[in-house]
Amino acid sequence: MKLIYGPVHGTIELDDFAVRLIDTPEFQRLRRITQLGFVFLAYPTARHTRFEHSLGTFYIARKIKERNPDLDDAVVYAALLHDIGHYPFSHTLEGLYPRHEENTRLILREGEIGEVIGEAYSLREFLRFLKHPVVSGDIDADRMDYLVRDAYYTGVAYGLVDLDRLIRNLHWDGERLVVLEKGIMAAQNLLLARSMMYPTVYLHHVSRIAGAMLVEAVKIEGIPLEEIRTMDEIDLLARLRVSENAEVRELIEAIDSRKLYKRVLWSSEPIDERLLEELKRELEAEFGYLTLVDYPPEPSFEERNAFVFVNGELKRLSEVSPLVRSLFELRGTYWRWGVYARRDVTEEVKRLVSRVLNV
Amino acid sequence: MKLIYGPVHGTIELDDFAVRLIDTPEFQRLRRITQLGFVFLAYPTARHTRFEHSLGTFYIARKIKERNPDLDDAVVYAALLHDIGHYPFSHTLEGLYPRHEENTRLILREGEIGEVIGEAYSLREFLRFLKHPVVSGDIDADRMDYLVRDAYYTGVAYGLVDLDRLIRNLHWDGERLVVLEKGIMAAQNLLLARSMMYPTVYLHHVSRIAGAMLVEAVKIEGIPLEEIRTMDEIDLLARLRVSENAEVRELIEAIDSRKLYKRVLWSSEPIDERLLEELKRELEAEFGYLTLVDYPPEPSFEERNAFVFVNGELKRLSEVSPLVRSLFELRGTYWRWGVYARRDVTEEVKRLVSRVLNV
Amino acid sequence: MKLIYGPVHGTIELDDFAVRLIDTPEFQRLRRITQLGFVFLAYPTARHTRFEHSLGTFYIARKIKERNPDLDDAVVYAALLHDIGHYPFSHTLEGLYPRHEENTRLILREGEIGEVIGEAYSLREFLRFLKHPVVSGDIDADRMDYLVRDAYYTGVAYGLVDLDRLIRNLHWDGERLVVLEKGIMAAQNLLLARSMMYPTVYLHHVSRIAGAMLVEAVKIEGIPLEEIRTMDEIDLLARLRVSENAEVRELIEAIDSRKLYKRVLWSSEPIDERLLEELKRELEAEFGYLTLVDYPPEPSFEERNAFVFVNGELKRLSEVSPLVRSLFELRGTYWRWGVYARRDVTEEVKRLVSRVLNV
Amino acid sequence: MKLIYGPVHGTIELDDFAVRLIDTPEFQRLRRITQLGFVFLAYPTARHTRFEHSLGTFYIARKIKERNPDLDDAVVYAALLHDIGHYPFSHTLEGLYPRHEENTRLILREGEIGEVIGEAYSLREFLRFLKHPVVSGDIDADRMDYLVRDAYYTGVAYGLVDLDRLIRNLHWDGERLVVLEKGIMAAQNLLLARSMMYPTVYLHHVSRIAGAMLVEAVKIEGIPLEEIRTMDEIDLLARLRVSENAEVRELIEAIDSRKLYKRVLWSSEPIDERLLEELKRELEAEFGYLTLVDYPPEPSFEERNAFVFVNGELKRLSEVSPLVRSLFELRGTYWRWGVYARRDVTEEVKRLVSRVLNV
Repeated sequence: MKLIYGPVHGTIELDDFAVRLIDTPEFQRLRRITQLGFVFLAYPTARHTRFEHSLGTFYIARKIKERNPDLDDAVVYAALLHDIGHYPFSHTLEGLYPRHEENTRLILREGEIGEVIGEAYSLREFLRFLKHPVVSGDIDADRMDYLVRDAYYTGVAYGLVDLDRLIRNLHWDGERLVVLEKGIMAAQNLLLARSMMYPTVYLHHVSRIAGAMLVEAVKIEGIPLEEIRTMDEIDLLARLRVSENAEVRELIEAIDSRKLYKRVLWSSEPIDERLLEELKRELEAEFGYLTLVDYPPEPSFEERNAFVFVNGELKRLSEVSPLVRSLFELRGTYWRWGVYARRDVTEEVKRLVSRVLNV
Repeated sequence: MKLIYGPVHGTIELDDFAVRLIDTPEFQRLRRITQLGFVFLAYPTARHTRFEHSLGTFYIARKIKERNPDLDDAVVYAALLHDIGHYPFSHTLEGLYPRHEENTRLILREGEIGEVIGEAYSLREFLRFLKHPVVSGDIDADRMDYLVRDAYYTGVAYGLVDLDRLIRNLHWDGERLVVLEKGIMAAQNLLLARSMMYPTVYLHHVSRIAGAMLVEAVKIEGIPLEEIRTMDEIDLLARLRVSENAEVRELIEAIDSRKLYKRVLWSSEPIDERLLEELKRELEAEFGYLTLVDYPPEPSFEERNAFVFVNGELKRLSEVSPLVRSLFELRGTYWRWGVYARRDVTEEVKRLVSRVLNV
Repeated sequence: MKLIYGPVHGTIELDDFAVRLIDTPEFQRLRRITQLGFVFLAYPTARHTRFEHSLGTFYIARKIKERNPDLDDAVVYAALLHDIGHYPFSHTLEGLYPRHEENTRLILREGEIGEVIGEAYSLREFLRFLKHPVVSGDIDADRMDYLVRDAYYTGVAYGLVDLDRLIRNLHWDGERLVVLEKGIMAAQNLLLARSMMYPTVYLHHVSRIAGAMLVEAVKIEGIPLEEIRTMDEIDLLARLRVSENAEVRELIEAIDSRKLYKRVLWSSEPIDERLLEELKRELEAEFGYLTLVDYPPEPSFEERNAFVFVNGELKRLSEVSPLVRSLFELRGTYWRWGVYARRDVTEEVKRLVSRVLNV
Repeated sequence: MKLIYGPVHGTIELDDFAVRLIDTPEFQRLRRITQLGFVFLAYPTARHTRFEHSLGTFYIARKIKERNPDLDDAVVYAALLHDIGHYPFSHTLEGLYPRHEENTRLILREGEIGEVIGEAYSLREFLRFLKHPVVSGDIDADRMDYLVRDAYYTGVAYGLVDLDRLIRNLHWDGERLVVLEKGIMAAQNLLLARSMMYPTVYLHHVSRIAGAMLVEAVKIEGIPLEEIRTMDEIDLLARLRVSENAEVRELIEAIDSRKLYKRVLWSSEPIDERLLEELKRELEAEFGYLTLVDYPPEPSFEERNAFVFVNGELKRLSEVSPLVRSLFELRGTYWRWGVYARRDVTEEVKRLVSRVLNV
């Protein structure tokens, strides 16, 4: 048994199989994938990586298993490995490539990590556990770790969750991870915490702008999926810094020295898809990489699969908690789309945007 | 200037006038009034008193004033003294006597504390500041202190609030304490925190039962308002321990040794007032002090007076936050009424309750 | 199994036997014995009691037992009950009566608590466990709890100790609790923490003065051991408040309203015992209760019984740690004796002290 | 004014000049220099950078200046910039190149940062402030930040220091930063904290081994000072990963995948310099990069320039604190030198080492 010390969960004990999984190059790569992408440009202390988060998710999953011995062991290792497919800067590049979950499934079949898993599990079987409610549900080990961890590293208290009370009151009924009555408040708190971390941290505009700049650089550079999928942040930044394309080099240098594009437009009003395409086309034609349109999907706060037992009856958490119900209404609240531009062209870009959008 | 060290806000600096107010017997009495009454029977670590809470409220009010120099100095001292009228065990006895706010107004006119205030303020004027929005509003120094403090002492994380961000974004417009845009999330968090601390801590049934037992003992003992209003917890408990009435002595001994009455009924369904009176009458006639009916008023989560500036426009927080809006729906959610009885008569009491309520 | 929530150790699980011990009036009395006596007059937030500390000591002892299954179960329950004999205001009155450890041994033989213990243990045998190294040694569960707890409640960070690392590296060799190599730094830290908490918190002069005043009041009142030994702080204060002796009443009122005596002399130089007696006699003759001499025993920092394993060899911690060795030199460093007097007689007292001591 | 949120000091307010300094590429580079080099291989959560530490040092220096208005403004900005010359992985490469302080002095004369400083200060004058006691003394803003920050990020509590009490009791007498009587314990605590963080964190053998491997790789690669001095960790790792030298690539890949060399020897006994050279020569001749000798300078704990005021007299802290005095004795205690080797050659290396050292 090996021990890992740390501030969020205290000491984490690793069994031999976990150590072997962690000691693979595929897992060690996570040390060089930041948990929150460019959020560190807004909250400089947020330098934590997918590596620590993966250890934390493992820790929580094992705690849940200790109270629910019926759970398959594989759940715990799936929790450890659930993020192994993240691209550099985590979610930032997911608009350009398949979602990281797909990459996770690929990476787990390959190389050293695939071999280690293969010694204990059939790979096909193991992959199914990545979708297990303990790993990937509305109340899961992943969220329990990242909310508390992101709160710790950013200093934004909203993410603090009563993990102990929640974990003590999770019951695996063979199909669902159900929250027992004494854990309802903690479960509700988890979902509220998440809804408050989104606008404050995860969707911070500074991170969004830097992310859009990176997306543009990667797009211009044209890095194929086969390469990006195993890169770490050093590989990616080093490659873009020496790009043959001057635009790419300029974008990366701007990110590195935090000379970010400015917001020309920042709106909570969705626009028609055709109009959006027209805007993108005209901006691209006129300004090229000097201006970027950032039109993200809406985050969902519709936690339909958080189940609770109340007086012995299985219910959805949203049925018993008006606060959780009201999360549905948040859908649009924190959503923003933006047009960003290099400082020296913001005025011209603004004019074009006004003309196209007629505002 | 005097310094007070402590864990919740760090060092608190006291100016000379604050020191003089604190050095009165009236203020020192607060050291012997627990902040949360009998909550310590459920959360043993919750032994903090109105004394520390008053210092903390003063600290926050002064921080708000530092950013809003238009605020009258008296606001800060009113924050310090706002709880000076609490009876022993804080809110526990408020059903038997006038609310503590009335007692605060009386105490501030009297004795050493009245004299010290009188040196700097007209008393009538000073008393008005007890209702100032900084001292007593939906987003006020009082709540900001007690939520964080109660979280610290109980270990229940729900009360944690981003005080720094909230205070930095409070603007006194001469009439209202308005939350600026960057503080909206922190303000929302404060109100959510409060709504979660209620069922988890403030309304914990163990505290409710012990409270009902104390109320009964004080009622039997018949302590007049004139006496109770300046008692501390030592005075009250000592008096009840040596009561000539054996029932009183038994009740206090049971509280002291935590041999509490048990819940015979615990319901979220209100009942008709006439029926309630009948139930009380019959229980009283049959069992006397051996059974207690605890039918509290509903806590209100209708924060109608939290104002925010959004795009320069004054709005209610509930207009811009679906989560705050949903607090209105909580009204009944956490409310419970109960019938408690000494362990040896629970079965008989249960039968009588069933008969009267026809359940 | 019962759960107790709290901030210092998280959730504490109580087995049935622990619950039965805790549910006795003897144990519940600890809720009304403050952990640090009058330290709350210097650090107002330090309102914690022997009750929480006893639960925490139990928690740590059980953690140690989990890693050392050879330890007798009784160790864990002895840890829970080790402080049951404390007088009101903890160590304050130990100069007037036998040390609290003796009272603990008496109380455990009596009443409800004695009966509960008797069901599982022979009392004589059980009492021996109060001196077990896990309960009462240089590195023991008692210290591990109180340092961290007192740090938490005062906000003085010095007491923070790496409990997890220490507990993981404690080995019971059948006779001694030995610190393994990886725990040496944490053990050293515990002893340093203790040495820093003494002058900063435990020996704070404000607490010392109030304590001396209480001692004087109790002495005048003449409360016999048989009564004090089962009193809680309410009993004691209530009795002194209504004393027939006006001096007693004055002293208690002064403590209650924090109108404390002032330091006339505060010295780190020991004096000859005969001179000390003369000083006491003359002060007593001239001023009676208006002045108090406080000449405490020196705290010892000679931790001779902290053992460690280094390269498989048993050594004393002081052999391997220069810092721990230097603790011996602290012996006198923080020690002070004082003469205190009511504010209106300080000048006269000072003259008499100068004359007697020839300074 | 700009605000930076974060967990260690709360919100940090930045004045315009600080913002301009921070917005230079030279300062932004610090975001990509980890504070503790390869400590993250032992404590995975220690991913913080010189960037946050520099902001924190600035924050503390400004707090000190607020209480000591005689201090020159330049002190505060020197605190902000004091680490700008760190090489990748902080102290790791200082054996190969001039100490980072020299590089700091060079970088401050150059580029954008030099220009910004030049607007307000003569550069020569400004550079002198890097040696100011507030920036670089035994009790300085640098240590105050890094101890608390490193404790926060590693979870090792030893580094926790009572910053508030220390800062409140620092007095600038025009020449020295003197600790006032009420701050002595906090100052002592700072020095003890540092002495405990060294063996536990800073000198952790895992970090030492990885560091020695990097040193070897850089040595083989032969990166000239002129290049390394402005590199960030991405530049360096990217360069070594694509080195033409297979040994370099192997070393870096081993670091990246944490397949570290093993300790063949780990000793606290210094050896004769000639013998050391012989050992190095023989190992080099026989094994080349497959084995590394790591013989570091001893860390010094001789804090001779921490001054305190006791009864109005200026003294050295070591005069009044036996604990600080005993730090001198630690000199050798935590020092270790080592021989590390790739796993497959450890046995052979061990034989050679035994032969040369005759052990």
